[in-house]
Amino acid sequence: MAQGSDRLIIGIDYGTDSVRCLVVGASDGKELATEVAPYKRWKAGKYSDPASNRFRQHPLDYIESLQAAVTGALAKLPKSAGGRVAAIGIDTTGSTPCAVDRSGTPLALTKGFEENPNAMFVLWKDHTAVKEAERVNSVSRGWGGTDFTKYAGGVYSSEWFWSKILHVLSEDPKVRARAFSWVEHCDWMPALLTGTTDPLTMKRSRCAAGHKALWHAEWGGLPPDEFLVRVDPRLRGLRERLYSESQTSDKSAGGLTGEWAKKLGLKAGIPVAVGAFDAHMGAVGGGITEKTLLKIMGTSTCDMMIADERSVGSKCIAGICGQVDGSIVPGMVGLEAGQSAFGDVYAWFRELLCWPLQAVAPSARGLPKAGIAALGSDVGSRLLDALAEAAEKIDPAQSSVIALDWLNGRRTPFADQTLKGAIAGLTLGSSAPRVYRALVEATAYGSRAIIEQFKAQGVGVSEIIAMGGVAKKGGFVMRVTADVLGMPIKVAASEQCVALGAGIFGAVAAGIYPSVREAQKKMASGYDAKYVPDRKRAALYNSLYKRYLDLGGRLEPFLRAL
Amino acid sequence: MAQGSDRLIIGIDYGTDSVRCLVVGASDGKELATEVAPYKRWKAGKYSDPASNRFRQHPLDYIESLQAAVTGALAKLPKSAGGRVAAIGIDTTGSTPCAVDRSGTPLALTKGFEENPNAMFVLWKDHTAVKEAERVNSVSRGWGGTDFTKYAGGVYSSEWFWSKILHVLSEDPKVRARAFSWVEHCDWMPALLTGTTDPLTMKRSRCAAGHKALWHAEWGGLPPDEFLVRVDPRLRGLRERLYSESQTSDKSAGGLTGEWAKKLGLKAGIPVAVGAFDAHMGAVGGGITEKTLLKIMGTSTCDMMIADERSVGSKCIAGICGQVDGSIVPGMVGLEAGQSAFGDVYAWFRELLCWPLQAVAPSARGLPKAGIAALGSDVGSRLLDALAEAAEKIDPAQSSVIALDWLNGRRTPFADQTLKGAIAGLTLGSSAPRVYRALVEATAYGSRAIIEQFKAQGVGVSEIIAMGGVAKKGGFVMRVTADVLGMPIKVAASEQCVALGAGIFGAVAAGIYPSVREAQKKMASGYDAKYVPDRKRAALYNSLYKRYLDLGGRLEPFLRAL
Repeated sequence: MAQGSDRLIIGIDYGTDSVRCLVVGASDGKELATEVAPYKRWKAGKYSDPASNRFRQHPLDYIESLQAAVTGALAKLPKSAGGRVAAIGIDTTGSTPCAVDRSGTPLALTKGFEENPNAMFVLWKDHTAVKEAERVNSVSRGWGGTDFTKYAGGVYSSEWFWSKILHVLSEDPKVRARAFSWVEHCDWMPALLTGTTDPLTMKRSRCAAGHKALWHAEWGGLPPDEFLVRVDPRLRGLRERLYSESQTSDKSAGGLTGEWAKKLGLKAGIPVAVGAFDAHMGAVGGGITEKTLLKIMGTSTCDMMIADERSVGSKCIAGICGQVDGSIVPGMVGLEAGQSAFGDVYAWFRELLCWPLQAVAPSARGLPKAGIAALGSDVGSRLLDALAEAAEKIDPAQSSVIALDWLNGRRTPFADQTLKGAIAGLTLGSSAPRVYRALVEATAYGSRAIIEQFKAQGVGVSEIIAMGGVAKKGGFVMRVTADVLGMPIKVAASEQCVALGAGIFGAVAAGIYPSVREAQKKMASGYDAKYVPDRKRAALYNSLYKRYLDLGGRLEPFLRAL
Repeated sequence: MAQGSDRLIIGIDYGTDSVRCLVVGASDGKELATEVAPYKRWKAGKYSDPASNRFRQHPLDYIESLQAAVTGALAKLPKSAGGRVAAIGIDTTGSTPCAVDRSGTPLALTKGFEENPNAMFVLWKDHTAVKEAERVNSVSRGWGGTDFTKYAGGVYSSEWFWSKILHVLSEDPKVRARAFSWVEHCDWMPALLTGTTDPLTMKRSRCAAGHKALWHAEWGGLPPDEFLVRVDPRLRGLRERLYSESQTSDKSAGGLTGEWAKKLGLKAGIPVAVGAFDAHMGAVGGGITEKTLLKIMGTSTCDMMIADERSVGSKCIAGICGQVDGSIVPGMVGLEAGQSAFGDVYAWFRELLCWPLQAVAPSARGLPKAGIAALGSDVGSRLLDALAEAAEKIDPAQSSVIALDWLNGRRTPFADQTLKGAIAGLTLGSSAPRVYRALVEATAYGSRAIIEQFKAQGVGVSEIIAMGGVAKKGGFVMRVTADVLGMPIKVAASEQCVALGAGIFGAVAAGIYPSVREAQKKMASGYDAKYVPDRKRAALYNSLYKRYLDLGGRLEPFLRAL
């Protein structure tokens, strides 16, 4: 129990639209208070252009929202609470890099760059660097020596560090002239709070470095200058101004500065853990252990595992997005897989079915426009539940409809963003619930393909823990997924596993626990639901899964070329 | 011009739900009056069971509706009109066979069988005889000698004559004991009106015999008793009580009886042409000539062609449903192809998109139930137009979505009812109009595949005439179809081409014209719309069509096995 004398830990979770501050008890992880603060400029639509997939965030959004979230959360607790906070852990989205000057200050905070999107953080989902990613990949493939992408799944993404840096450097000579170095959002926040922003000594996140910047101990850190110059001469010399070491998040980045202690209502000097990405810290908050697949199920999925260094060693796990020593739990190899679309597949179908209500109904006569709009929004919000209710009654053995879940490409196994979705076996009797069931089965088959790939690579999966919006919503999707996986799925009880995971790292960085594993035992989330597969349906899905693989095999080259 | 002294012709078109009587001028085919009369028992849902695909029609429905339609049409004309009618032509659906007694009377008109569905006409779309069709096919394949299905596309259907007869004989011992012979609806109507119903001498329709009963001159008529007995011993001896000769519809079945002349308000003795199926007479009404593909576009399509006997001879046109000497135009080989679903594909998508309005909206709060129901029906009726409007703006070169149109199996080329539909290339941005466009393109690709098959078999297509609901509605679907086919499509002006075709046969049977071709020149429908392909889009679709073939080739075995 978090008593009045107990130490508290703050977990900070920077999401896509807002930051969350969670205050937990250090001894038991009990969630005592939380506050979410949106990014104001982002919310106003500034600096981004969805039509061209450009998404930028201003550093002031991060600073202002942090202060609001922390003071807001503490305001819900007794006045003494601020003084009892013993550590801070921080996670962010990523790869979300930003150009900084010699002092480690994001250029958008310096004169003349205040309104320049290229001087801001390039958000994880920004897709402006497609060309640059292709360049990294083509050089990588033509490169005689080491394949620097081999621990990152073999394909470098437009969403990642070097692609984004190169895109900004190519597009914006002013930023190019002024940028001394670059930071990830999860590097910069702890550095800012601890006054350690010098780019040459700033503690760099192992998680970001390993998964997004091609950092690996095998080649002594980042890829050599020679490689980067081959990608583009504009990268010449940058490696020297970045880093060669990276840190796991059980380490402290430094002590909270007096200035920030005052702003946040905390004690100066308390440790701030080295940052990491949300999914990775979330996996820790959700209770990841060896042989446990931690599945974060939302619009897409992140499928996280950790493996013993000795069993994986320097072996490449084929077909998986990334493997980085210590990116999730220090001392273990963090493995990251995922599905490019999960809940998004259902959302696509919902939008498809709502088209008449949006495009046709408003011109109907005899009913008030406002009433139709209300009806449309009401139907839209209840549609997936209604589809699930009807789909649940369909016997999967009796339906000919089968789908491929690659509507947003495929992340794992074997990343290929050029793939697309498909629905096959349609008859004139294929109703909306039947198609919906096929889509849900398809996303479950996609989940299974990841597990099969882990297994084929010698990484056993004996347990599944799910978190994220789709998992918490539960019901039909989770039942089908359990049936298709043929394994029980436990759902993490906490609604805030990610911030909780950040808090766990804070507690370890503060020395309250000797290791992440020990901290997890006391602080990580429990489970509030368990989906056990139906034996008969699991057996059926065992054979239907082969049909999914067959369909995928037949269509892969075709879909790639569309 | 049909002057007061001009002779008139009556065309009778028995459809699925009603019969149409059309009165036209003999000299110019001008449509003077028409009347449609529904089948009362059928409309009341009697004798059929849609859940088990059993569809039966009572002969009294045909008799009563005929009288209502003819007298109704004549009532719209001057009193003298009935006396000026010089001939009657009749078409019906098919294969729609019925058991008759020794006198040629359908059993349902005899004592003790009045309410027995097995004693009634087995409607074309009745699918109760699936097992029996399999039996015909398996015997046919194991048969050492002639392949009796070779002019019927090589696969015998559950919708056809022998399958249906065998199904009724197997299921109903009472009908088996009483049935002397069997008639097609299009055999029986002219026989009834002319008092020539003796089954042993009744004029049998070449069209029905050739397309549905495996009749061919090559083997002297119907398949030999030996073959039929191999299919099922219950067929023993039936061939003797059916027919060995069949007639084209330019021949008269006899003169109108005094009794029927009185009932209909016509002169006794006027000739009634031998009957045929609706699509075949419709093709004549629409203006079919050599090298003209006559495409009847509705829920499904019938694609009719005629070819010179000398050029086709006894050669089998591979992959086409049927080829019968004289089934469309006497002296020419009638070729029948078609798509199992055309408008039905769009109707499927409309139903899919309307699911929320039917299943979810009615439980919404704050709007009156009646209002929501009205909205649902309003949206449903306007939906395809709205989709077309939005889909027309999509550049086919920019869309990755591509579909297979086999949602109801594939009739031509190479009939396979086990095939199913598919939609491939879906992304999260694939909107309803985008999917709709892909479905419309798919049905057009299906049309093109038929034309390519005709061409590959040496049957050139230089012109396309379209008729039927989809063609008359016109617009987007017709523009896309013209672009995909790369040929102009003319649309028959008459809304009643089928009854008009029946009238043309009546006029020829009466000797008013020496041949169907000559009668067509004066009487057949003109054209009221022409869709000319856009040169650029036609070129694009030339290559996208190859993509459709590629997709089909990859998926065929997979879809078949679902």
